[in-house]
Amino acid sequence: MLCRHGAGPGDERETAGVRGTVDPAFAAVRTLLEELADLDATYSGALCAWHRGRPVVDISWGPVLGPDDLLPVFSSSKGAAGLAVACLVRDGLLDLDETVASYWPDFAQRGKAAVTVRQLLSHQAGLLGVDGGYTYDELYGHAELAARLAAQRPLWLPGSAFAYHGVTIGVLADELVRRIAGVPLGEYFHHQVAGPRRLEVYLGTPEALDGRVRAVELPTPEELAALPDAVPRLGRGSLASLSVPVDGQPMYVECNEARFRRAGTPAAGGLASARGLAGMYAAVEHEVAGVPRLLDDETVAQVSQLQVWGRELTQTEPLRTGFAIIFQKPSDHHPWGSYRAFGHDGSLAYADPFNHIAFAYAVARIPLPGGADSRAIHLSRAVRRGATATALDR
Amino acid sequence: MLCRHGAGPGDERETAGVRGTVDPAFAAVRTLLEELADLDATYSGALCAWHRGRPVVDISWGPVLGPDDLLPVFSSSKGAAGLAVACLVRDGLLDLDETVASYWPDFAQRGKAAVTVRQLLSHQAGLLGVDGGYTYDELYGHAELAARLAAQRPLWLPGSAFAYHGVTIGVLADELVRRIAGVPLGEYFHHQVAGPRRLEVYLGTPEALDGRVRAVELPTPEELAALPDAVPRLGRGSLASLSVPVDGQPMYVECNEARFRRAGTPAAGGLASARGLAGMYAAVEHEVAGVPRLLDDETVAQVSQLQVWGRELTQTEPLRTGFAIIFQKPSDHHPWGSYRAFGHDGSLAYADPFNHIAFAYAVARIPLPGGADSRAIHLSRAVRRGATATALDR
Amino acid sequence: MLCRHGAGPGDERETAGVRGTVDPAFAAVRTLLEELADLDATYSGALCAWHRGRPVVDISWGPVLGPDDLLPVFSSSKGAAGLAVACLVRDGLLDLDETVASYWPDFAQRGKAAVTVRQLLSHQAGLLGVDGGYTYDELYGHAELAARLAAQRPLWLPGSAFAYHGVTIGVLADELVRRIAGVPLGEYFHHQVAGPRRLEVYLGTPEALDGRVRAVELPTPEELAALPDAVPRLGRGSLASLSVPVDGQPMYVECNEARFRRAGTPAAGGLASARGLAGMYAAVEHEVAGVPRLLDDETVAQVSQLQVWGRELTQTEPLRTGFAIIFQKPSDHHPWGSYRAFGHDGSLAYADPFNHIAFAYAVARIPLPGGADSRAIHLSRAVRRGATATALDR
Repeated sequence: MLCRHGAGPGDERETAGVRGTVDPAFAAVRTLLEELADLDATYSGALCAWHRGRPVVDISWGPVLGPDDLLPVFSSSKGAAGLAVACLVRDGLLDLDETVASYWPDFAQRGKAAVTVRQLLSHQAGLLGVDGGYTYDELYGHAELAARLAAQRPLWLPGSAFAYHGVTIGVLADELVRRIAGVPLGEYFHHQVAGPRRLEVYLGTPEALDGRVRAVELPTPEELAALPDAVPRLGRGSLASLSVPVDGQPMYVECNEARFRRAGTPAAGGLASARGLAGMYAAVEHEVAGVPRLLDDETVAQVSQLQVWGRELTQTEPLRTGFAIIFQKPSDHHPWGSYRAFGHDGSLAYADPFNHIAFAYAVARIPLPGGADSRAIHLSRAVRRGATATALDR
Repeated sequence: MLCRHGAGPGDERETAGVRGTVDPAFAAVRTLLEELADLDATYSGALCAWHRGRPVVDISWGPVLGPDDLLPVFSSSKGAAGLAVACLVRDGLLDLDETVASYWPDFAQRGKAAVTVRQLLSHQAGLLGVDGGYTYDELYGHAELAARLAAQRPLWLPGSAFAYHGVTIGVLADELVRRIAGVPLGEYFHHQVAGPRRLEVYLGTPEALDGRVRAVELPTPEELAALPDAVPRLGRGSLASLSVPVDGQPMYVECNEARFRRAGTPAAGGLASARGLAGMYAAVEHEVAGVPRLLDDETVAQVSQLQVWGRELTQTEPLRTGFAIIFQKPSDHHPWGSYRAFGHDGSLAYADPFNHIAFAYAVARIPLPGGADSRAIHLSRAVRRGATATALDR
Repeated sequence: MLCRHGAGPGDERETAGVRGTVDPAFAAVRTLLEELADLDATYSGALCAWHRGRPVVDISWGPVLGPDDLLPVFSSSKGAAGLAVACLVRDGLLDLDETVASYWPDFAQRGKAAVTVRQLLSHQAGLLGVDGGYTYDELYGHAELAARLAAQRPLWLPGSAFAYHGVTIGVLADELVRRIAGVPLGEYFHHQVAGPRRLEVYLGTPEALDGRVRAVELPTPEELAALPDAVPRLGRGSLASLSVPVDGQPMYVECNEARFRRAGTPAAGGLASARGLAGMYAAVEHEVAGVPRLLDDETVAQVSQLQVWGRELTQTEPLRTGFAIIFQKPSDHHPWGSYRAFGHDGSLAYADPFNHIAFAYAVARIPLPGGADSRAIHLSRAVRRGATATALDR
């Protein structure tokens, strides 16, 4: 197996279906994965981690996943969107404390003149959907939905509460990028981040790559039936019901359609390999593929600062999470990193500057009810322990 | 039984003590009520609902309630207060983002110069009572209590938290109406809303109507003893203890006194029939009794927008509710409507523009510990299902 | 036993190890303490309470505590810091709504130009520590740590959340006092509050008093092992881990070192007798030792107003508490006083202007996991009941 960026003098072998390279200091990650794979014959995925600027884990496992497969990564797409926005911040093109309307004049409609970029990009603007709902066509087409969001009265007083804009945060960020950089967010991301580093993360997957796309395995009816919490959330007329397209199939089915990956909606439509996602977060503070680090410390600090936290408006149970600028932060209930870590679940991918880790995990079966599954948290901890042990040895 | 606004070609009959008219599409509401009445021989009340501008349910049930009875509706009075304020917003006489002091100069005392109308009318101003407490006489007299509220240092930093101003929000709104419209809120409401539409909702019930007033049945000592949560809340020196009058009897006893209904304090002193309350919410978007709709879409959107949400300051357990401008919003724990619904419990009455419903429910026994009882929630759902089925048939 | 300020015609005796003077109206306090001491042979402490400007309880109990002993009082030190700040507010030298930077220009770095004094002193500024951690030497030395805090990007967006700045709030308040009054906070406190009233509360305990210092009994390994909640909070890389010094021993061990009491860091390094702490809070509204009351009503109202409340950022479980200006407020879960009460746990000491009580409680064994133990809450209630009974007799 080739490791694109070279995991150094690691241990490359295949045991119990776990294939790939692991640095000896991180051997416990392989052991944990072997145990997890033993427990679940359907478990299949890839994990890639970097430590202090070099790959230390680059493995895949299970019956279906090959090392070059591209997978829908759902909300981990938001990490790519977040890095695109971070590039604008880095270059002084976007000021988080400015009003959205200063970049996007139409946005100033119906009580939104004072909404800041910071609020917009941290789920506070009250625009998780539009009255009457939106369709997949509108989502893929972008312009009409952006215009409707600009014309929408906020669904709550901006700044008074937050609720996860699971899909529309991508549309909102995309429109900002288009207004400032003149190109769609996916294209800007490719130009700034993924392309120069040859990272396989696509917000808009080219048709030429369709042969390497792995269809996500759908949940069984039994699995769906076991999701009682999700039902009231998405009940007709609920706030959360506005957050997803009103027509067609659920996104975990739609995600396997060509139109879904071609559009690459920035909040949820990305396809990637674990290697690509890990490299993307490694690039934040390190040279990757000969390209200098992507962001300076000041920009990292700005976009990874916690903006909102606490009870989220659409959840029946406390979400107990928080958000930075598009990025998600770890929490006591999803403890995937230090106070400086930032990334996003969906699959799970993040940078943790405190621990000098970049981490990406992608699986072939859709995790329900969404968010990082507990295996990802455990694997994240194993990587962190390897990094800490390494630090103590220095 | 006469149905004042005509429930159309409905099914008018009396079964198991349920009397009145129900549109066939809403027959399940009658069935549910029959079941509930069977379970509790003391259950007695009235329910009226409109769908798309016409009455579809207009019933009463149980041993004591007649169709023309007027009942104290406690905090559902706040719905009338909210509509009065909405009329000022509609006419451009009140700007929610202005400071309270711009309408009521004395209000600018002791750290309140910057408090906005929006904060004042969504339980954020820290004025749920006054140091030293207030009496029923002050509440009924209005002016002195308004002056004391204007002189009060906020009980918490305005905007930093919210706590239900169960009584004083009516006094505060009343003073705003008096300053702007020159008449008390109850009179303004009657002039703008109830009078022209011949709706029986009174913030200040005329003596001539006393013969139709149904005394609310008081809770038994056993029921009161079973309210452990309420005790610490109202403990001496607690914040919540400031919210109710310091002298005399509890409000659920006081409510049967003539002076209580004559004063009609806007937060809790209203008397109404279910028909009156339902017609009031129907009027929001529809012609009622030949009078054009009360509010335009923009005003509805403004006053029904969620302003605060989450943990409330005086409750030991999460309230998990939110408030718009005076109006209450439904929540996961009190799911009486869509994200666009607004109204108030007490009894339970609301408008739900998403489902095109106006709903009112009033009962002859006081619900404890206050708020909508679970039967109201179930009945509300049954009405919503009728509305949805009707929509699907169209 | 001498009662420095004289507990009047009280009942002075020793029963079951409870020594000292108790006003007859407060006899239940002694009875409760006798019961508590009977249950736990290691229980040892002192309690002093004033009512309406005169001492009514002045007792100590248990095997180890003598009446003149000085004890580390941990976070109850913050009460002294709060009163020092209150003196600046009283004299018009500090405006809570001004920016911190207007007093401390260096503070305006990295997104903190708009942070207000009010936010800084109510745990909202996102400065509970510094990236990389700080040492005991830095804490004791003050200047370098203050400079690092001024240079720190807030750990969350100021104003968006709060988290207990267990140690650094003292450094931040200290720097403000130094900038405004020209002397360290501990010295200013002594000059303004403790010295003139001969109150034994020291933020910086003179060497001459070391003979009267009682070493705090350390928790046993079993007690420490029984603290599961504290472990994740202080995990490596957690936000909470930044709040305590990175080097050396835990503060509950360090507190017995001479360097700790000499430095007297304002958030946690105070030593006091219960008499001293109670006298300090009595002084808020009453003449003590012939010195006129310390604060006017307006200042008391300002510094005791609730500023933040609700879920706290570093706790896995809801803290359900709130903070005023440095001072802590009582809550449903720590109901040690009325809505007007303010003080701090650690040991437990507060003023309650509603009940006209000043209360202080200090114990010789460190309470874990910190905060007021349940015995303090019960004793506080017993004092309150005595005060209420007295009021009813008047």
